[in-house]
Amino acid sequence: MGFFSKDIETLDDLFVHTLRDIYYAEKQIEGALPDMVAKATDPKLKAAFEKHLGETAQHIRTLEEVFELHGVKVKAVRCPAIDGILEEAEELAGDIADKQVLDAGLIAAAQAVEHYEMTRYGTLIAWAQQLGRQDCANLLARNLKQEQAADLKLTDLAEGGVNLQAAE
Amino acid sequence: MGFFSKDIETLDDLFVHTLRDIYYAEKQIEGALPDMVAKATDPKLKAAFEKHLGETAQHIRTLEEVFELHGVKVKAVRCPAIDGILEEAEELAGDIADKQVLDAGLIAAAQAVEHYEMTRYGTLIAWAQQLGRQDCANLLARNLKQEQAADLKLTDLAEGGVNLQAAE
Repeated sequence: MGFFSKDIETLDDLFVHTLRDIYYAEKQIEGALPDMVAKATDPKLKAAFEKHLGETAQHIRTLEEVFELHGVKVKAVRCPAIDGILEEAEELAGDIADKQVLDAGLIAAAQAVEHYEMTRYGTLIAWAQQLGRQDCANLLARNLKQEQAADLKLTDLAEGGVNLQAAE
Repeated sequence: MGFFSKDIETLDDLFVHTLRDIYYAEKQIEGALPDMVAKATDPKLKAAFEKHLGETAQHIRTLEEVFELHGVKVKAVRCPAIDGILEEAEELAGDIADKQVLDAGLIAAAQAVEHYEMTRYGTLIAWAQQLGRQDCANLLARNLKQEQAADLKLTDLAEGGVNLQAAE
């Protein structure tokens, strides 16, 4: 969006802008996940991050399908929110000395990412439905479902052993 | 946290660091909400933001109680995640020309804030319990409950009329 201009005039414009925001976010996450895989110590956590890396690549392709269905150019717009969330994750990881505590911190950081994605997909689905694009809403709901499952898996890992090991 | 140092050695350190992160976030949100109240057009949305401003002031006091209970200094540490989320909200609001579309955008921005807070409180509660601080967990759960309620209220407003008006 340009400076001093108000480029968003309709709900459709806002939908497309937000689609480009989450597209940027998914690409940044795809870039950040290999580092989280490398930093994780718990084998189950490492595996969960690896699995989510594959899912993220699929989410990017699904978003490209939504752009196409909706007849707009596939494009990313910079999203300061995900940049801030990932910057915080990296800073935090660099501040943690103990490997087990780092695992707990990585889970917290990844859950902040998941929550950001969940809120954006929830909004996009509601707007797609309002705009009569149930076809787009269905594709977006597929991504949302996987983000929710990834978040729950991280909670299970945290409460199922990672937090306990971090406290020992 | 200092450069080149790894100041977080235990889960307790990580808990206190994250407490200071959400304390900073709540204060930034308290600073940003009056602008969202001013920008909202729908009277119910304006009222919801006003109500949440009061709740946010209470969350800050509750966090101060948690610091005290846990015997650590009340302190904020800069949280790039909330800074990014609020920067994105402000940029987006500046890009929207239509008042009804702006209301839909403000709801989306506020829900991104709520989701960030929900993930942080969820994590802090789990860590407090792991550390044997059920007293801290109970106070944090009070804040979490209000964030969840605020998020649901925003969904109700979006789906109960704001999105429809934005699409007209």
